[in-house]
Amino acid sequence: MENPLTDLTERPLVVGTSSEPALSKESAVHAPRDWQAFAKVKLDSLTKPPGSLGRLEEIAAKIVSIRERESPGCANKVVYVFAADHGVTEEGVSAYPKAVTQQMVRNFLANGAAINVFSRCARVEVIVVDVGVAADFDCHPNLVDKKIRRGTRNMAIGPAMTESEASAAVGVGRMLAQEARLQHRDLIAVGEMGIGNTTAAAAITAALSGKAVAEVTGSGTGVSPGALIHKRQVIERALSVNGLNKNSSPHHVLQKVGGLEIAAMTGMVLEAQEQRVPVVIDGFISTAAAALAYAIEPKVRDILFAGHVSEEPGHRVLLDCIGLDPILNLGMRLGEGTGAVLSMMVVEAAIRMLNEMATFSSAGVSGAL
Amino acid sequence: MENPLTDLTERPLVVGTSSEPALSKESAVHAPRDWQAFAKVKLDSLTKPPGSLGRLEEIAAKIVSIRERESPGCANKVVYVFAADHGVTEEGVSAYPKAVTQQMVRNFLANGAAINVFSRCARVEVIVVDVGVAADFDCHPNLVDKKIRRGTRNMAIGPAMTESEASAAVGVGRMLAQEARLQHRDLIAVGEMGIGNTTAAAAITAALSGKAVAEVTGSGTGVSPGALIHKRQVIERALSVNGLNKNSSPHHVLQKVGGLEIAAMTGMVLEAQEQRVPVVIDGFISTAAAALAYAIEPKVRDILFAGHVSEEPGHRVLLDCIGLDPILNLGMRLGEGTGAVLSMMVVEAAIRMLNEMATFSSAGVSGAL
Repeated sequence: MENPLTDLTERPLVVGTSSEPALSKESAVHAPRDWQAFAKVKLDSLTKPPGSLGRLEEIAAKIVSIRERESPGCANKVVYVFAADHGVTEEGVSAYPKAVTQQMVRNFLANGAAINVFSRCARVEVIVVDVGVAADFDCHPNLVDKKIRRGTRNMAIGPAMTESEASAAVGVGRMLAQEARLQHRDLIAVGEMGIGNTTAAAAITAALSGKAVAEVTGSGTGVSPGALIHKRQVIERALSVNGLNKNSSPHHVLQKVGGLEIAAMTGMVLEAQEQRVPVVIDGFISTAAAALAYAIEPKVRDILFAGHVSEEPGHRVLLDCIGLDPILNLGMRLGEGTGAVLSMMVVEAAIRMLNEMATFSSAGVSGAL
Repeated sequence: MENPLTDLTERPLVVGTSSEPALSKESAVHAPRDWQAFAKVKLDSLTKPPGSLGRLEEIAAKIVSIRERESPGCANKVVYVFAADHGVTEEGVSAYPKAVTQQMVRNFLANGAAINVFSRCARVEVIVVDVGVAADFDCHPNLVDKKIRRGTRNMAIGPAMTESEASAAVGVGRMLAQEARLQHRDLIAVGEMGIGNTTAAAAITAALSGKAVAEVTGSGTGVSPGALIHKRQVIERALSVNGLNKNSSPHHVLQKVGGLEIAAMTGMVLEAQEQRVPVVIDGFISTAAAALAYAIEPKVRDILFAGHVSEEPGHRVLLDCIGLDPILNLGMRLGEGTGAVLSMMVVEAAIRMLNEMATFSSAGVSGAL
């Protein structure tokens, strides 16, 4: 194969069961193209031993397959930070007061939070989406007001949301994913802020995986060992009061023990799959949202990247459920989208490697003996 | 502790065994400052749960300790790619011809290699240092000509270098580390190019660790299983011919089975420790150089960061010898400094987190309950 890229351009590889030995250029235009095969040939033409960039080669090939482009872009990146409050904070499940949700939203808009710093490093735009914070905010160019209600109800005594509230929150995420496609976003990350939301994520994880609550519940922002026992009891109660178990539908799990920001992220992941926009998920909470989306539509795995694996014990359980291997493992447990945005730097490097590296032929470098 | 940073500024923490209960401002100026303690207090004042940024907090604290600054910079970053040829390629130990060393040097200077792409992503300057390539190059602003000889001798039949050649190569690295300090480099990475140099790195690893050659020798750029057996036999022969074992001095190991680029990297790490410049090491070969530096002066660990862990089996052995935990694990095995430069994006994010994040107090965010 002297010049694999030229060969490929002239005679695209085709998937499927066609028994035709070769395709004319015209029929090839309409045949589905095997983008994985294209990516493999292109990656192997670059000045490096085949496969020597490991995960970066996998990432580049997956992006090519999602976007169905020979040279996908990576300049237009955004992280959506979905914020909402949780009624279950009444039970004393968090190390921080509920007011921190709104205070951190203001911190995001003032560019002072970790997600702002990392997004500047990674050249990513930050958009904060208020899906249900128990506070009012002034207009701000980086704030999208889609408040559905001022926080969920207390899941320990009944459903966190009504069916229509959950559905509206999913719709917020879907609408933003459609908008992202229209805005030619190359890559989107999802993050969140919501005091109490590791409690919701742990309840979702227990219901989806069938694993014991103790196995999937961690200390979140850092509750004491005693408070962790209490948090687990609250989650047990929420699952029991709402009649949830491994056989419950993902829609019921989301509505009864989810959160408004979680529902919005689920909607964003579902719609991004339809729009062919790659999504980088972040920590435990955004992965719970992605796992719900995966339970509804397994094809979402094809457009998902796991930015990192956090210290929360339930996170690895969810990544295994979906079948995703995290890009980074840095012992983080902050949320906001911080792990996703850091990993976007690796994803960008992978895409630019594919687009910008010289080939053996163009650089006059000898191939293997 | 209402305002820990102000407290700290007014009364610096001091290490040592002084029994003085408090220090006046004047005496504090001359007392060594506990930079780790400063970093911990500052990190815990930022708007995130304490410790929730995991490895990034460790990295930021280590940078503060190395540079002895409250707000260390990260804008001025460089990767030195040390290039040299290896006489042992005569034995047929590599999947690629020896000419690829000089061809890749030209590729680096033409900005077409993976290290160039990743360095653009991470805003890192690329400087290629010819310590011993078997070719002549035209002048180029990014090429430093410090050629000592046109490649090492074949280590399978005698010492790769004379004592004075090895010493001169170490001097090249030392001189560049001094220059880096004078140029106010915030962070430097070391990478390399040299067909045959995983053979040298494996020989060094076997000698330093005392482990079996088979355990520390991988397929490098990708030799076949049969060629891997041959490569191991060549390394056994080199160790035997040169009389090396676990008791050999690191200087002897370097001279007899090292390489000119490896010696230069050892010199750079040794001098960077004296100059207090943080160094990010890359894959198997640069880590072999760092392990030699560590065997000579264990204090170098304090200024080293392991960018990633590669697929070469000896790499993890060396990282464990030095006591370094890699930042990334992406299945890479390319060298050039690629893993180091990718990880510099994480190191930069850690430094900017420390410098740019709002504090609980400045952002009006409530602390833990």
